[in-house]
Amino acid sequence: MALIVHKYGGTSVGTVERIGRVADKIVAARENGDEIVVVVSAMSGETDRLTAMASEISDNPPAHDVDVLLSTGEQVTIALLAMALHERGCEARSYTGAQVPIRTDNTYSKARIREIGPERMRADLDAGRVVVVAGFQGVDDDGRITTLGRGGSDTTAVALAAALKADECHIYTDVDGVYTTDPRIEPKAKRLEKITFEEMLEMASLGSKVLQIRAVEFAGKYNVPLRVLSTFEDGPGTLITYEDGDVEEAVISGIALNKDEAQITVAGIPDKPGVAFRVLGPIADANIEVDVIVQNVSRDGSTDLTFTVHHRDYDQALALARKSGEELGAREVAGNTDIVKISIVGVGMHSHAGVASRMFEALSREGINILMISTSEIKVSVVVQARYMELGVRALHEAFGLDTGPVTPDEPESW
Amino acid sequence: MALIVHKYGGTSVGTVERIGRVADKIVAARENGDEIVVVVSAMSGETDRLTAMASEISDNPPAHDVDVLLSTGEQVTIALLAMALHERGCEARSYTGAQVPIRTDNTYSKARIREIGPERMRADLDAGRVVVVAGFQGVDDDGRITTLGRGGSDTTAVALAAALKADECHIYTDVDGVYTTDPRIEPKAKRLEKITFEEMLEMASLGSKVLQIRAVEFAGKYNVPLRVLSTFEDGPGTLITYEDGDVEEAVISGIALNKDEAQITVAGIPDKPGVAFRVLGPIADANIEVDVIVQNVSRDGSTDLTFTVHHRDYDQALALARKSGEELGAREVAGNTDIVKISIVGVGMHSHAGVASRMFEALSREGINILMISTSEIKVSVVVQARYMELGVRALHEAFGLDTGPVTPDEPESW
Repeated sequence: MALIVHKYGGTSVGTVERIGRVADKIVAARENGDEIVVVVSAMSGETDRLTAMASEISDNPPAHDVDVLLSTGEQVTIALLAMALHERGCEARSYTGAQVPIRTDNTYSKARIREIGPERMRADLDAGRVVVVAGFQGVDDDGRITTLGRGGSDTTAVALAAALKADECHIYTDVDGVYTTDPRIEPKAKRLEKITFEEMLEMASLGSKVLQIRAVEFAGKYNVPLRVLSTFEDGPGTLITYEDGDVEEAVISGIALNKDEAQITVAGIPDKPGVAFRVLGPIADANIEVDVIVQNVSRDGSTDLTFTVHHRDYDQALALARKSGEELGAREVAGNTDIVKISIVGVGMHSHAGVASRMFEALSREGINILMISTSEIKVSVVVQARYMELGVRALHEAFGLDTGPVTPDEPESW
Repeated sequence: MALIVHKYGGTSVGTVERIGRVADKIVAARENGDEIVVVVSAMSGETDRLTAMASEISDNPPAHDVDVLLSTGEQVTIALLAMALHERGCEARSYTGAQVPIRTDNTYSKARIREIGPERMRADLDAGRVVVVAGFQGVDDDGRITTLGRGGSDTTAVALAAALKADECHIYTDVDGVYTTDPRIEPKAKRLEKITFEEMLEMASLGSKVLQIRAVEFAGKYNVPLRVLSTFEDGPGTLITYEDGDVEEAVISGIALNKDEAQITVAGIPDKPGVAFRVLGPIADANIEVDVIVQNVSRDGSTDLTFTVHHRDYDQALALARKSGEELGAREVAGNTDIVKISIVGVGMHSHAGVASRMFEALSREGINILMISTSEIKVSVVVQARYMELGVRALHEAFGLDTGPVTPDEPESW
């Protein structure tokens, strides 16, 4: 008998009929002999409806009141799902975040989980009940309702799985797993059977929207095997775990894409210690996140610094860079919003030489000019002009054998 | 500085704009120097919306799940009202029933309040905050959400007023007070300045819908002065307290009307001890509430028993009465759904002889035949044919001087 935490997002529970289908899945899993804890989000559209009422009242409502308001969304879902389970002869008990309890700090609207009390849920499971928990919410030391911010329901599911020492945490979504790359760009993209936490973190942070980064970090930290599956189709999905022997033959697991960034270059800065700090300091002070940063070697006593920021921060970051550039005596400050970042990700990479050069070779064969390069232990990212996006992804997908070869040497798991 | 508990029902908070108007009233009361605790219901329509979703899932959903579902309705209102108060520069803190805590038994969907912890609310009031509480809901010993059933928000308000030793509990409604009788039937009906708990209880139980009976009982038990006022117009409303010197000159305070009852007669029963029990026992066993019961004196060794039940229970009660009638050898069992009950209510009555006869005289002058009579310390009820309803009410309204005279000798209170 395995203990599995299921998580269903807003689309999966978006109508009463879909809540019924989720109940069917849970009943089937129970009949399969598993103990089940279910985490649900608010029905899709509900959060927008509530937020619209709040914004009629105030442009800037207090965060703790917003949390009291929004947390009703998941509470509606847990009640309806518990009813649907009962209707199918399956005993269930519902919990708000505060009832579990899921204790958080008091950073309203983006609280972090501190501690989970598993005793009451454990007692329900022992009594043969399905436990239904409202995602996205908790309670602070003062007994006030908090919410975890975006993607919080994934984090709730992983945290419950860790607290209950669950065998797996299943994240049900509208896709049937994690793919080698975006199938809309490369139709030959394949579902991965397995991927490591580190790889998934890179994939997520590089623009793959399947899972929230915090949930993956949490799962990695507490070693909770995560599985991404489809709510609407049966299938094994993709399992996210720590590296084991099986994974080593795959050099890279996937190709991630980020279209949300823009590039800023401060060129011809007289090279003195502290140049990077003098440019990037004011940008960090403005709470703008900087992603790729490249500084070339000094030439003729001057240097170029290039970095990327999110599109939404571009105008502000460019203005700050122009100001710093002027102060530093830079020759030119230029921006480019028409770029994409393509990354290859794989834990196999660190034991295989030549991965980066194979990447650069594949891109050069297609005549794609690389604007920036950034590397880490398990990924290599390049920034290229946006028009090369599809071409670049497909070239890399082929170059690393993702089109054809088995992605991992595993057989599909029994399910 | 007075501590006042305000209660606003679903219509009063039915839209975001109305929530804003409620916030304005609270701010005005605060500026008047009062400490305010506000109890709110779900926005009108919200409970129906939630109930509709539940009934799509199940014809008979578990009561504890229904409570988890419905309690979100008030939680939305407390969040929005707290935001609206904040927007007006008024510090407020919202509480769900569980957060207060309002401890109840575990009779889900119609729980009764056992205990209220006033400490946290008291601390907020001391800190100058308005306290906003979700009505209609509480928490049981097991930490599960309960709801108090119909009219529960009135009960919440009164119970909080008792726990906080508030000076008054204001129930804001869509009428501006308690009237001598239904103004739709007798346009000369007047708003009462004051009425006693006992009178209000009789008025409520006799069909006046202004306040829920349980809330009035609770207020009487804990001696919480209740005031019924309009959300939409300013005015002193009607104060409900214990009898004091002022009230004694008024013989009766009001005329109540109940159109929801039907009459059943078991006639010609051979008179033996236990006849009433043998007829009414099976009806009580079927959980049917019986209101007026009249048994005439035995004549020729047989007796007649007549009683009234709610319309919804009429068919079942008639069938049970036919069965008992047969077993007892009764001559006839007959029913009449075309009746109304008219009652005069007043604490002054018990020290004034002749009130009942003045009532009967007034009705007889209009040629109204009385079908049943029932009396208590502070009321006299008659059942008459439905077509005499308006005529009877108006005749009594005039006969007891409610048309013209001052209802109580008080001056309107300063407000």
